[in-house]
Amino acid sequence: MMDKKKIAVLKGDYIGPEIMNAGLEVLKAATENQNFDYEINSVPFGGEAIDSEGVPLPDRTLQACKNSDAVLLSAIGGPKWDNAAKRPEAGLLEIRKKLNLFSNIRPTQISEAMQDYSPIKIEHEVNFVIVRELTSGIYFGTPRTKSAAGAVDTMSYSTGEIERVAKVAFDMAMRRNKHVTLVDKANVLATSKLWREVVGRIADSYLKVEFDCSYVDAMAMKVISEPEKFDVILTENLFGDILSDEAAEITGSLGTIPSMSVGENGPALYEPIHGSAPDIAGLGIANPISMIKSVAMMLENSFDRGDLATRINNAIEVAINKKVVTPDLGGKSTTTEVTSEIINNIRESS
Amino acid sequence: MMDKKKIAVLKGDYIGPEIMNAGLEVLKAATENQNFDYEINSVPFGGEAIDSEGVPLPDRTLQACKNSDAVLLSAIGGPKWDNAAKRPEAGLLEIRKKLNLFSNIRPTQISEAMQDYSPIKIEHEVNFVIVRELTSGIYFGTPRTKSAAGAVDTMSYSTGEIERVAKVAFDMAMRRNKHVTLVDKANVLATSKLWREVVGRIADSYLKVEFDCSYVDAMAMKVISEPEKFDVILTENLFGDILSDEAAEITGSLGTIPSMSVGENGPALYEPIHGSAPDIAGLGIANPISMIKSVAMMLENSFDRGDLATRINNAIEVAINKKVVTPDLGGKSTTTEVTSEIINNIRESS
Ligand SMILES: CC(C)[C@H](C(=O)O)[C@@H](O)C(=O)O
Ligand SMILES: CC(C)[C@H](C(=O)O)[C@@H](O)C(=O)O
Repeated sequence: MMDKKKIAVLKGDYIGPEIMNAGLEVLKAATENQNFDYEINSVPFGGEAIDSEGVPLPDRTLQACKNSDAVLLSAIGGPKWDNAAKRPEAGLLEIRKKLNLFSNIRPTQISEAMQDYSPIKIEHEVNFVIVRELTSGIYFGTPRTKSAAGAVDTMSYSTGEIERVAKVAFDMAMRRNKHVTLVDKANVLATSKLWREVVGRIADSYLKVEFDCSYVDAMAMKVISEPEKFDVILTENLFGDILSDEAAEITGSLGTIPSMSVGENGPALYEPIHGSAPDIAGLGIANPISMIKSVAMMLENSFDRGDLATRINNAIEVAINKKVVTPDLGGKSTTTEVTSEIINNIRESS
Repeated sequence: MMDKKKIAVLKGDYIGPEIMNAGLEVLKAATENQNFDYEINSVPFGGEAIDSEGVPLPDRTLQACKNSDAVLLSAIGGPKWDNAAKRPEAGLLEIRKKLNLFSNIRPTQISEAMQDYSPIKIEHEVNFVIVRELTSGIYFGTPRTKSAAGAVDTMSYSTGEIERVAKVAFDMAMRRNKHVTLVDKANVLATSKLWREVVGRIADSYLKVEFDCSYVDAMAMKVISEPEKFDVILTENLFGDILSDEAAEITGSLGTIPSMSVGENGPALYEPIHGSAPDIAGLGIANPISMIKSVAMMLENSFDRGDLATRINNAIEVAINKKVVTPDLGGKSTTTEVTSEIINNIRESS
């Protein structure tokens, strides 16, 4: 008997549960008779947890995640908790830190089929990955103070924190097109100067990987003007937050982008990059693809089942080509219809 | 006799002097017989000053600026000074701080005529202004340290620093479309929370101005997806650096964008937003429009000669419509030819 994989499920707020359901259905269909046995442990997180237990990340949720082999998370937060003592987003920062998920990986892809959705005029396929440091920098540095007179945040990085995420980026480049671009503001920031030094040393031990650097302001331009030139973009937490959203926007299909957050050991976490879309919650029209791709990413990266991931991703491509898509992609289909279409495509391919 | 206006000229590096010459020629033509008397004081700055005096901002240059009514600056820096003890960019930060130029104003415009140049698919005219805080935040905060073990930067803001630049933004909105959008990261940063509070209070005293807020990551998307929705975007130093370059990129015509940096009293500084373009220096093909528009901005804002600014800007429009433009805008004209065309258009309109 194979051991059962344990998957912690944090189903999210507003459209969160709608697309999580879709993701779990596809997981079930894709693993049927595939020698992949798993069990789901669904635990409260974010707004849901604030409502039921008073905090966005209850202890038992953290424990369930720690005891799992992978975590699936859907979009959280929303106006309902704007005035909560601890908001859903605080739970997000906490879970990243407590699971030590120091690298966040976000693919940006514009295939030929998807160029119409892009808000930019492009003539090339785009395919890069942003590796964002996720558990340090100005998100976590102290002192962090605020009074009537003024406020302070601290951007701080240790050499070790830079090294470990840099290795993730270079290892990834080795499996891709062997090109890493470090994004920083080394003409101004001390932390950026350290990033250049430390990453430069790591680069020296990956002789096959081309390495260059760009200032963050220049990169904000290049994401629009020459996105086809990048392979792996490595950057610190705040710059990664901004650039990965900008990168998502140039695909024109935010609702299709998954992400993965990884630590040293312990479970990785998979989630869509978009928010909980309160405006369309309950209408049944949320795009499930970002969540379904997160499931595929999990199968490939946490469970070494690239074969199943490929089947899911191919099934998604077929659905998109047939234009069985939700309104955000110009279609007329519901979340359920898109999900069924993808499941049918998976079954037909097996 | 009218008093002579004193203009300090910092002519810049690489293409800097080429476009500064163009700007000064247009200034001369536009003010001929217009009751506007001025004198130019050209002083070294940036790379040029490092070469001649060892530092990017010599004392006499700072004094000349302080004694002037306005400062015209062209693009500075370049690879030649990459290893200088103090780089040209350090001079830029220093002059901003020492002239107390706390608000940096960058217009982003895409007129119907310019939509073809834009890398984004747009159906609307775009016309917003970014007001970026320029003398505080993580650019200047201390401690700023770096050792082999780690590094630290400090983002700090006093309430007063936020108030004064916020007023600039709201006053500007009153003269425009009465809408201010504050960009911050208030779901994470203490300084951003302070910005929201302080700017919110200022907003209360501008009842006619619509006020809203956006997170910086979301704004990085909206600059691409709905740039037509903004009027005045107010933000702190680092976010302004990134967003204003992104905004410039969506116009597709970086070489046409001027900027102005303003303090409480003392001279304002006018400069193109682009760099010194070492790759095309000396070829005579640099786009002079950004510098010429900087001159127009100076005439309007430092010397209350909106009439002359309008004539210059109209003359530029005519040149663009006739496609007398440099290669970056798809034309075949040289810097000199574009400048002459603009000067002719000015003369014909008077
Ligand atoms: C919600 C917010 C705190 C978070 C971040 O800034 O990291 C989000 O924008 C993200 O990118 O996951
Ligand atoms: C050169 C650099 C220090 C500067 C900045 O970051 O402010 C530049 O990017 C700008 O926007 O004027």
